[in-house]
Formats: sequence, C-alpha cells, structure tokens
Amino acid sequence: MKASQFLISTLKEAPADAEVVSHKLMMRAGMIKKIGAGVYNYMPMGLRVIRKVEAIVREEMNRAGAIEMTMPVVQPAELWQETGRFEKMGPELLRIKDRHGRDFVVQPTSEEVVTDIARQEIKSYKQLPKNFYQIQTKFRDERRPRFGLMRGREFTMKDAYSFDRDVDAAKASYQVMAKAYRKIFDRFGLTYRAVAADSGAIGGDLSEEFQVIAATGEDAIVYCPGSDYAANMEKAEALAPVGPRADAAQAMSKVATPGKSTCADVAEFLGFSLSSSIKSLVVATDTKDEAGNIIKTQVSLLLLRGDREMNEVKVGKLDGMADFRFATLAEIDEHFGCKPGYLGPIGLKKPVRLIVDREVALMSDWVCGANEEDYHLVGVNWGRDLPEPDLVADLRNVVTGDLSPDGKGVLAIERGIEVGHVFYLGTKYSRAMNATFLDVNGKPQFMEMGCYGIGITRLPAAAIEQNHDENGIIWPDALAPFTVVLCPISPDRFAAVKEAADALYETLLEAGVDVILDDRNERPGAMFADWELIGVPHRVTIGDRGLKEGMVEYQHRKDAASSQVALTEIAGLIQSRLKA
Amino acid sequence: MKASQFLISTLKEAPADAEVVSHKLMMRAGMIKKIGAGVYNYMPMGLRVIRKVEAIVREEMNRAGAIEMTMPVVQPAELWQETGRFEKMGPELLRIKDRHGRDFVVQPTSEEVVTDIARQEIKSYKQLPKNFYQIQTKFRDERRPRFGLMRGREFTMKDAYSFDRDVDAAKASYQVMAKAYRKIFDRFGLTYRAVAADSGAIGGDLSEEFQVIAATGEDAIVYCPGSDYAANMEKAEALAPVGPRADAAQAMSKVATPGKSTCADVAEFLGFSLSSSIKSLVVATDTKDEAGNIIKTQVSLLLLRGDREMNEVKVGKLDGMADFRFATLAEIDEHFGCKPGYLGPIGLKKPVRLIVDREVALMSDWVCGANEEDYHLVGVNWGRDLPEPDLVADLRNVVTGDLSPDGKGVLAIERGIEVGHVFYLGTKYSRAMNATFLDVNGKPQFMEMGCYGIGITRLPAAAIEQNHDENGIIWPDALAPFTVVLCPISPDRFAAVKEAADALYETLLEAGVDVILDDRNERPGAMFADWELIGVPHRVTIGDRGLKEGMVEYQHRKDAASSQVALTEIAGLIQSRLKA
Repeated sequence: MKASQFLISTLKEAPADAEVVSHKLMMRAGMIKKIGAGVYNYMPMGLRVIRKVEAIVREEMNRAGAIEMTMPVVQPAELWQETGRFEKMGPELLRIKDRHGRDFVVQPTSEEVVTDIARQEIKSYKQLPKNFYQIQTKFRDERRPRFGLMRGREFTMKDAYSFDRDVDAAKASYQVMAKAYRKIFDRFGLTYRAVAADSGAIGGDLSEEFQVIAATGEDAIVYCPGSDYAANMEKAEALAPVGPRADAAQAMSKVATPGKSTCADVAEFLGFSLSSSIKSLVVATDTKDEAGNIIKTQVSLLLLRGDREMNEVKVGKLDGMADFRFATLAEIDEHFGCKPGYLGPIGLKKPVRLIVDREVALMSDWVCGANEEDYHLVGVNWGRDLPEPDLVADLRNVVTGDLSPDGKGVLAIERGIEVGHVFYLGTKYSRAMNATFLDVNGKPQFMEMGCYGIGITRLPAAAIEQNHDENGIIWPDALAPFTVVLCPISPDRFAAVKEAADALYETLLEAGVDVILDDRNERPGAMFADWELIGVPHRVTIGDRGLKEGMVEYQHRKDAASSQVALTEIAGLIQSRLKA
Repeated sequence: MKASQFLISTLKEAPADAEVVSHKLMMRAGMIKKIGAGVYNYMPMGLRVIRKVEAIVREEMNRAGAIEMTMPVVQPAELWQETGRFEKMGPELLRIKDRHGRDFVVQPTSEEVVTDIARQEIKSYKQLPKNFYQIQTKFRDERRPRFGLMRGREFTMKDAYSFDRDVDAAKASYQVMAKAYRKIFDRFGLTYRAVAADSGAIGGDLSEEFQVIAATGEDAIVYCPGSDYAANMEKAEALAPVGPRADAAQAMSKVATPGKSTCADVAEFLGFSLSSSIKSLVVATDTKDEAGNIIKTQVSLLLLRGDREMNEVKVGKLDGMADFRFATLAEIDEHFGCKPGYLGPIGLKKPVRLIVDREVALMSDWVCGANEEDYHLVGVNWGRDLPEPDLVADLRNVVTGDLSPDGKGVLAIERGIEVGHVFYLGTKYSRAMNATFLDVNGKPQFMEMGCYGIGITRLPAAAIEQNHDENGIIWPDALAPFTVVLCPISPDRFAAVKEAADALYETLLEAGVDVILDDRNERPGAMFADWELIGVPHRVTIGDRGLKEGMVEYQHRKDAASSQVALTEIAGLIQSRLKA
C-alpha cells in the first residue's frame, strides 16, 4: 500500500470522552471514528487490524474442525421466546418491531438460532460432533457504553457452538476449542492467561476466560507463579490455612466500642490487628410456592475475617444458597435484636444458620459484635463460647500470598481484559428448544452443547492496553495494520531516495510483506510521529546522506534508536525478523 | 475439506414457499436456511460461495484504489435526519429506539454515514479523489420479501462512495469504477450486460446497471446485437421511425364502436391493424404554493400508438412533468366530456396540453376515440383534422426490432437480474450535509460524489438463475463452493480406492485447488445426486474397477457423461482446466 492511496488520519489530541489509553490511541491513530454512543466506524487503518484478528481466528477455527456459517444480525423473536430470553434479558437486548409489528432482536449472541439449526440439521449421533461458528456483528445496548471498542454497543464477535452426543464427547469438544484458543492467542503475540472461570450451575471446570494481561484491565486474575494455575477472582479457591486451630488464650469479655461499627474502626480502637476481627454478614433465602409467594425464609449469618471480602459467586454455590439476598433491617432486628455494625454469632434472639469461612473456623481469641449497640466481644473462641458452625466453606476472595490450590506455592494477582471465553453449556438450550438426536439405540437425546466466544473488535483495544508507550501503539507483528513502513526523506528532492524506496517497496511486496510506503512527502518529524502513534512495528528510513554510503536506517517500534543497515541487506533483515 | 468434517445437507424437495429456481436450489442444496420472512442463515455451503464473491469484489475494489472500511449496521438517526431520509423513506427503513428512547436505523445503505466521515476527514482538494467502500450487512424491510436471497430483508452489499473535487474528476472516478465492475463481473464467470440506466434528475449517462442475464430476470434489458449498446427499459430511447409522414389517404369519419373501449377491441371490431390506432392517456401536474396547496393544475393528453406501452420515466423527464399523475375521472370529464375508453384529441370541452409520441407524430389515417361514448374517429390526420401537437417526444418503451439509438441495427430485448449499479450522485448528499473541502483557491466547495453497489448475497442467486439444469446448480469455477469434488466408490471396501482418493486429495490441496473429498461412504447414486444438486463444476470418481487399469472418471458438471482419465494425469488435467 502507498500512503497517498490510503487514509492516514492522525490526531494530536484525543477527544475528551476517551477515558482509557486504547480508546485514546485508536481515535488518535485514526483507527475508529465515533458516530454515536458505543457505535463506531471501523476506519481503514483500524479495519486492517480487525481483519488480521479475524484471519487468525478463522484459520485456527477451521483447523480445529469448526465449520463457518453466518446467522442473521436481525433475528425473529420467536426463537428467543422459546428459551425465555426474549422476556428475561434486560434492555441490553435491542428489540425491534418490523413494518408488520412483528418482534425481532438484534443479536447479542446466537445460542437460539444455532440450536434451531442443529435441531433441524442433526438427526443422528452419526452426524456428531459438530461445531458451527460465525464472525458476525453483534449488538448489546449497554447502559453506559464507553472505552471505545472495549465496551461498545455494536461489535464483532466470533461465536462458536459445539454439539455432542454425551458429556464426555462435549468435554472432548471443549478441550479441542480450549487448545485452539491457546494457538489463536499465541499467534496474536500478546501476553495472556487462560483462567478458570465459574461454570455456573453446571459445575466442573469447563469454563475458561482468555485474559489479555494489562495493568488497566477490569478483571482481577489469580495465578500461581510457580505453576500454571490461573483463575478469575470468582472462581479462585481460598484454601483453609495450614495447621489446627490454636487453643484459646483469652477469656471472652464484652467491651464498649462506642460508634465503632466497622471491623477496621473496632480493631484500631481496641488496638487489635484487623485479622483477629470477624465480619458478620446476614443473608436470607426465600422458598416460594408455585404462585411465587414466599412461604419460608431462612436467615443465615456469614462470618469472614475482618480484612476479607465476600465472594458472592462462592456463597451462591453453597447448598440452598442459590438465590441468596442480603437480609432486610427488619429480619436482622428479628434475629439479632440489634442494628448492623454490632452483629455477631453470640446471644441471638432467634436462631440463624451459621456459615463461616474456612479461615474463621480455625481462628481463636477473635473479636465480633456483641449484638448490642456500641459493644463488641473480644477473646471469643469456638466450642467454649459458641457451638461449632453449621457449615464451614470458602466464602471469600483470595488475596496475594494465599496458598495456591494446586499446592505449588502462593497466589499472585494481576489485571486482565477478557477477550475470549470457552464454556460448557450442557443441555440448557437443547432442552429449552427440544434439540434432540437419535442415539445408537434410536432413542432421542438432548444434544450436549458448548459455546466459545472471541471479541474480535475488543481484541485490538486489549492489545493496545498491553502494548503502548507515550508515543502511541506498539503492535505485535501479527496484528499490525501494516508490518513495515518505509519512510523516504524528501523523495521529491532526491531522486535516489525515491528510487531506493520504490525498489525496496516492490521487493518487500513481492516477498509477501505487508508494507506501506509513506509517499506523502511529509517532514520526517511529522512522518515518524504518525507511524509511532499508529504503531507499525518495523520502520525503514531512507535518506539521501545514508544512501550515498549505501545505508538505510532500521528501527523497531520498541527500539530507543535506529541502527544503520546496508540497503542491500535490509529486505533480508526484515524478512528474518518477521519469521522470528 | 473432507465431507465428513463439513455440513452437507441436501433436500429432495424444496419448501412450498420457494417460488423461483435459485431459491429452490439454494434451499435444496443446503446453502441457506430461512429463519423468518426474508431472513436467512447462510449455511456453510452457501457461505463459501458468498466468501468467493466477496473476495473477488474486494480484490478488484482494492486494485481500483478504493479503500475498505466498515460502517455500523445500527446507525444513529441524526445523520439520516440531516438529509431528510429518516422521515422521507418508507417503512422499508427499519427504525429502532434504543434503551434511552433514541432513534436509530438498521442501514439499508450508507450515504449519510460516509458523507459524515468525508466532511470530517477531507479538508483539502489535495486529499481528493477518495473512494471508500464496505462489504457489510444491510436491511430493507421489504413489504413482501421473497425469492430467497433475491429479495431478502437482511442481505450483504458492497457499497462504495467516491468523493471528488469537480464534475470532471467525479466522471473519471465513475469510469474507474465502471471499469472495475467489468473486471469483477468478468471474473465471476457469468453472462452479464452493463446497461445504461436512468440517472435521475442529474442527466448525463453516468448510471449503469450490471445485469446478470437470465430468462427469469425481473428486468427487461434492451441491447443492440450489432453493437455494444445496452440500456434498461426505463432508459432505452425509442427513435422516431425513418422517413416523413405519409399523406392523408382517408377522410375522417365517426364510427360506432359500441362497448369497444380498448384499442385492441376497436381495431378488431373495425378490421384495422392495432398499429393504426392511437391510445389516449390523460395525465395532470399540479403547481403548489409554499403551504402545499394546489394553486394550478395542468391536464395533458398523451398519445401513443395502440400497441405501445407508456414509459413513465421518460414522461416524468419531460419539461414540467416531473411529478405527473394520472388524471381523475372528474378532470377527464371536465376536459373531454366523456368517460375513458373513447377519448381522443379532437372535440375537447376544454383545452389540454397535447403531447404525442414520436411515432404518433408521423402517423396518417389513424383511429382514436371520438370523445363520445361508443364512438371512435377513423382516418384522422395531423394538420387537416387537428393542429400539430404541443410537444413531440419519446414516450414509450422500446420493443424488439426498434432502431438502435446508435444507428447500428435494431434492438433486441432479454431479461436480466440487477446485481450491481454504478451511479454519479453529484452534490445531493454533500449539499444536504454540508460536506465541503477547500479548493486550490482556498474556497469551500461541495464534494462531487458517486455511489457503487454490488449485491453480494444476491449474486449467487442470480448466478443460479442463469446456470442450472434439472439436476441442480452449475457453478462457474470462480463462485463454486468447492471447485472439485472427489467421489471414491466404496472406499470402506476397497483400500486402493481410499488410498488413491486420499492421495489425489492431498495433491490437489497442495496445488491450491479448492477440493472436497466425499468420504461419507454414500452410495454412488446418492453421492452424485448431492454434488449435481450442489453444482460443483469438476467431479472425479475413483472406483475399484477403473483403478485396476490406472483410470479414474472425470466429469464436468455440464458434461452429459464422464470420460476416463489416467490417475497419473487427472491432477494435471484439472489444473489446466481451472487455468483455462
């Protein structure tokens, strides 16, 4: 490509509404252009990156045996009504009425449509396994779209759906995808982690997020530097501390803590470590009759160490806690006779289910609320001062330094941006839509499904969050809009410069290198600033002075300075660098 | 590709709602699957064809210097309000409200968005010309979607938009596209015509439709077999007959034609040729004040030969006739004192503007209505019986045998399917949206625009309408979902067959041939029927008996029978055929 025949449109300043660095740099580099909240034009420079992402994804999906097709952007509501998602999904599902008043949605994902296809196409176990995918426009009507392509409303997603005859086959299909995703992310040239994620009600470990590591990432990623353990915060298990509970050393006593209603305030006021205090959280679960009326409510008290955070996903997975909610003030008063801030497990008005974190179950001489305003208990001990808990479980988020669940060291935490997800769905959709096949015995069975997404247009944003400096983007070779830029200096004045640049351009093109020749006749400063902002990884500068000695300048986007390379060797150098 | 790893899903019968052959065959070949009225899944087999269309279009657009980008499917209404199209367009424009109640449209085309981009990006004449294109999902909420991909609601279109500094430059950009389109359509391997089309109010010849020739096409295409003249019916000019008007031979007389109100009935009743009768059509044009009230109405009488059809586009282009309508019965009675069926230009109650077709102006001794129920006039002659007309013009559709406007013979008519259009837009959108650039004198000027569409998903349907037989589709090599299919006979029983098929498959793959190996172990009859339906152009059958003599069978989809080819020569034969 020659720059004069392309659209290069850089900005000195990012627009005021660009909050994160990837959004700012994509706007400044002329890769995207906003036309409405969360809706962007993919400009020529940006589209080249998106197409490279697509090509890698398509190649590896095909290699893994998945079959490409395309499902419509505008989908009839009927299928979404079959699974109940038309009603259940919130306003992020964009609903439309056509000219005849019929309901449609703009697809945010395509489980319904692909399951409809499968139930029509797949009759027999002999046709399984099958994995269908599409790379297609999606829409989610986010309440607050922001961060450019990171959280847009219209976006491109690769979504794949596997269909299998039984759970084991579905697990095998899942593993094929998990492996293909590793190849895909390896090829992107980004630092990433595949982290175990919560797999919902299904259980098992068949859910992984692919997270691009970036300090600005919105997700916390837990990993073990000494092993390949990695999980997201919802999923990462907090093991019980090693060793038995220490013997009681203190007597229990009630102390005045006037106005000190948080663990931190109490610990500071009493001169204790925060880690010896206990946090009391009151939750409730309702049992309903068929008409939806509440017929019974179970109140539970959760105890965590004062310096820990509750993990709602873990609590929700405990027996009977699937739909837990925080208790009302009336329920708290009914059971504890006290307002929040001074609650504890001792001296209740009415019994509650006592669920304590693994860590708390091993504590001695701890501090908790006295169920009396402005008072706490200190020196509290299990067995002596209160009975052992009803349930001991992992209730909290892990922290740096926790033991790794695989026993291979301690955990560390970093930030990531989720750009891929592989997920075992089970029969959720096939049951709802009656998608069956005939098994070896001729008996209808529900298809076992998995789903596998990659945020095609989110990926470039994540790549930039990970790879940039004060001058702009630093693309890995695989994602760069152009791999190499040739910058002739004053080619209008020096015929030899123009000639050498043109010849090198032709040589690289013929070698299949994705090269752009900057023939705009810009000043060197402006030209270099543009290409550093755009982030092309390899730059060759051709100047009259160097040429006289047969030399050009090569600089990788990550290099602090350029190096002199013989004109006769530059094409070879670039090709060997691109292969590496 | 191996068939076992793909989705081959053929049907014996087409669904009842499939009316045209392309729709039937695409459904039967498993290329598309309906999920709602005018909304289709592009199934794996169909998507492969669509991708081939896209690839050819993209390559030639890039070669012609156009720059690819992507505009959103869901577009904010604001831009559409700037040009007035948000209000003006009918219900075929799918309108949406987002969660905040803001108006959006699902794009049917993107003039507004691309003009918005151009007015932001293009500041100076130095940046011109530019041509931006996208290959993107579109939606038109057709009142009666039908014929599968031929007239769907959701479809894929390549739309390009050129921006230029003046009319001459815009014409040059138009010609670049017109040339690129010829390359594209040549590469598709279809029989097509580029036909001149009406260019709306702008005038000039800068509008061409690319029509795939097919007996089932909905458009009539006019062409001259002796030259390269071609135009659509709206545009094709009907020349005046050669030679002067004959002298009057008959006296004018009134004859009774009781109940004969059509030209055909009158001609038959009186024993005249239909070509000596005159058709009277009464139309009106209203002049309105600023408030939209009608302040004046001009009634005109159009005269055509009895066997001709009026061309509304031609009439609409006459001076003062832009918004003509057919006259009301009251208006007809007011001017003619007679009901339709017996109208004519002689003996009016109130004067009308008399506009006659070129052919009529040269007729003598003709028949027309007498402005009296159940009576006609015969032997009518210009000058003698009535004054010469106010205006003589081309008012009619051409017919086979008319003189070609280029003077190189006579016209023929065939049917076509419009799949592409190149069009000079002028400043319609740039004025409405104030898209200006600074010219050489630093003065703002409106950009001159052109637009260029190709119906990506319509093209495969048009290709099938042109290329099929009773067994199914016959793809040209360039569009086939697979170019070559290998059909081993009973590879499960004959190891040599499997071995030879596998080896040939690998050889062809390595040579870059788009080959599918049918490893499904189907019976030969079912296998052949599938591939004839799907329309793969080249088939190689590998059977045990032939192999023993080192032979395989080759059959092109158009061949009536297969021919024996040595196994050692088949790969070379296929490659040479694909190059041809």
